[in-house]
Amino acid sequence: MRIAAMHVTPIALGDPPLLNAAGLHAPWCLRSVVELVTDGGLSGLAEVPGSSAVDAALAAVRETVIGSDPLNWHALRAKLAERCSPETSVARGDKPWDGRTRVQVYSALDVACLDLQGKAFGVPVATLLGGIVRERVPYSAYLFYKYEGAGGDLAFGTDLRATGWAAARQRAALEPAGIVAQAQAMVREFGFQSIKLKGGVFEPAQEVAAIKALREAFGPAVPLRLDPNALWTVETSLKWGRELEGVLEYLEDPARGQEGMAAVRRALKLPLATNMCTTSFDDLPGSACHGSENIILTDHHFWGGLRASMELAAHCRAFNRGVSMHSNNHAGISLAAMTHLGAAMPNLGYALDTHYPWQEEEIIVGGRMKFEDGCVVLPKGPGLGVELDRVALARAHENYRRCGLTERNDEIEMRKKVPGWKFAATRW
Amino acid sequence: MRIAAMHVTPIALGDPPLLNAAGLHAPWCLRSVVELVTDGGLSGLAEVPGSSAVDAALAAVRETVIGSDPLNWHALRAKLAERCSPETSVARGDKPWDGRTRVQVYSALDVACLDLQGKAFGVPVATLLGGIVRERVPYSAYLFYKYEGAGGDLAFGTDLRATGWAAARQRAALEPAGIVAQAQAMVREFGFQSIKLKGGVFEPAQEVAAIKALREAFGPAVPLRLDPNALWTVETSLKWGRELEGVLEYLEDPARGQEGMAAVRRALKLPLATNMCTTSFDDLPGSACHGSENIILTDHHFWGGLRASMELAAHCRAFNRGVSMHSNNHAGISLAAMTHLGAAMPNLGYALDTHYPWQEEEIIVGGRMKFEDGCVVLPKGPGLGVELDRVALARAHENYRRCGLTERNDEIEMRKKVPGWKFAATRW
Repeated sequence: MRIAAMHVTPIALGDPPLLNAAGLHAPWCLRSVVELVTDGGLSGLAEVPGSSAVDAALAAVRETVIGSDPLNWHALRAKLAERCSPETSVARGDKPWDGRTRVQVYSALDVACLDLQGKAFGVPVATLLGGIVRERVPYSAYLFYKYEGAGGDLAFGTDLRATGWAAARQRAALEPAGIVAQAQAMVREFGFQSIKLKGGVFEPAQEVAAIKALREAFGPAVPLRLDPNALWTVETSLKWGRELEGVLEYLEDPARGQEGMAAVRRALKLPLATNMCTTSFDDLPGSACHGSENIILTDHHFWGGLRASMELAAHCRAFNRGVSMHSNNHAGISLAAMTHLGAAMPNLGYALDTHYPWQEEEIIVGGRMKFEDGCVVLPKGPGLGVELDRVALARAHENYRRCGLTERNDEIEMRKKVPGWKFAATRW
Repeated sequence: MRIAAMHVTPIALGDPPLLNAAGLHAPWCLRSVVELVTDGGLSGLAEVPGSSAVDAALAAVRETVIGSDPLNWHALRAKLAERCSPETSVARGDKPWDGRTRVQVYSALDVACLDLQGKAFGVPVATLLGGIVRERVPYSAYLFYKYEGAGGDLAFGTDLRATGWAAARQRAALEPAGIVAQAQAMVREFGFQSIKLKGGVFEPAQEVAAIKALREAFGPAVPLRLDPNALWTVETSLKWGRELEGVLEYLEDPARGQEGMAAVRRALKLPLATNMCTTSFDDLPGSACHGSENIILTDHHFWGGLRASMELAAHCRAFNRGVSMHSNNHAGISLAAMTHLGAAMPNLGYALDTHYPWQEEEIIVGGRMKFEDGCVVLPKGPGLGVELDRVALARAHENYRRCGLTERNDEIEMRKKVPGWKFAATRW
């Protein structure tokens, strides 16, 4: 079996004006869809965060990919490592989504090859990752402070016909009551059993108040998380972390860097999770040395694929770390991949993050994937178990062409609302 | 696909009187052959170190195994972990082969399930481990101090008709000249490109002299290794280690324990390898903390299988450790499994250990596996690529019944030659 063709399709999906440490989401989020086609006509899919940089990196490895055996990941990965020059592999920066292009290339090809392999063998990707330990993979409600608006073609406007979650996802949420209302609508629609609030937007007192309001509204049986995206100093983390002991399931990335996180972790009776201080295999010795976190949030797009994420899970088991998953905006191919990973990960200890409820469009056959009691049921069928809806893909690609964005930049977007706004790596 | 039957066959293979830190090899080495048969009639093989303890542990999990899906390792492993009581999992002891029964059970079932999976999908086990990076897997010449004799039915006698390596493997080797002669015969027969001497038998001066004689005989292009099996103090390791700087490829387990090894490693300009101080996933945090070794020698029988060994390889890559393989006496099923692992391990940096040349019998179709220039060529065919020779298996099982051994005990065997001999965890 050989890879005969590789198609990369940049797409844009409507995204509401969500606030975060880095600024504001643009009306469109970008993804790139990768399709590998074998000489036998099988099609393997993957989806990665979209940018002109990742598209260029994927284009640069095309000749390496064509002709390769999708069953031999080790050989392909070695060739990719040789081909990916250091320039395509920028260090992870300050901002939450600052990924490294090289690992996204690995991720795209790892996932698409696993999809092909599953189709060739007639088994789900989760089986190829070692076997299915759960058919229903739990996700969390991912709350955002936001301005009013739906994103996409409505830009900052709203769809006045919307009801239920579709209406709630358009409403502003800028204080505790708005966050609680958002949570209630999202939980009602999707059945999530855990709740995460993206913080790092307002001063800690306001975000802690929102968490306390959520606790008040949902009670102690619903695990809560807060993610200030490393904008707090160690001192601020200690002050507000103490307020959250016994309230949060975990506090995600309060402070910056492994040493800062370790200092917070030593002092607090509160588990710390990270997708910012321990974000690659190169960071694992430092994590072991400093003891920077209790839980590592993998993201197969940024750790180099599903197989690499399973290696991270094995590390977490040996080093007494919990493991769960981080998310950026994504469509159904990534949701399927995340669900296969969650289905196969023996030591998955927490509901996964997903931005999925914030999008309305889909590029796979059957449209939006369903949540049952906050879980995604592992797709049936071999490989990832999803197929491209080519009409929807063409529409999403047309959105990409129309929207004019070529990379994510929440700072520029934020300045449209708050002139002169600047990202600060440490804010409080 | 379900596992319908599980057969465990204890076997004995003739083994010459090889000396090591723990005493003397008995005339027979024990293995247990595990065969899983699916409802569709596929047969999956594995081989583990033999003992009444491992046979009892395998018998204890039989009901757990029967009915399980061999494609779902994670689910089976979770059930095995639940079933394996702490009593079946003794801590690793002082002696080199002191394994833990539980991981041997995992290993047997991991390998047999991978063999089934490969047969079901029509691909080699190495493909299931992520892909083949080398078709020819290099092994090292594994030298032993030994008394004269062939083992097996000849016990301590010799076969006077033997020539070549068959004759050399019967000859005594108790001083440097004998070790060099043994190496020359073994290298001539198998084409090995690296040489390991099992030490911990004589005082360090004598073993270092043997290494220097090997260097003299083979020149600097042939990597050399010495394994005193942790019988040296830190001081002794430093004294003799300095003599070996620039001579050895690596020094294996000079001193006992991660802290002792780390003290030696800090002081010497000589890579240290281990299969004694870092022998399980539970030991990895200590290894990271102390920096106890440069190279971890996996052994899929003792690390819980081929998939677990791949997880160890991923750890080694992240923590800047080299990785290679340890061996006990074994037959062709284990050699095939080791070869698939070596073929799939991207960061394999050293020729693997194998006791294989010391045996003459085989239990697989086609008889003894061949070495080409010290390498085993990855077996063709799906799964492990080997099949049971049931006549040979019955003969090896009859040897087991006749020999009367139920566990390995080199101390008892040594006392037959040196009355009152006692194992000492630290000797020099």
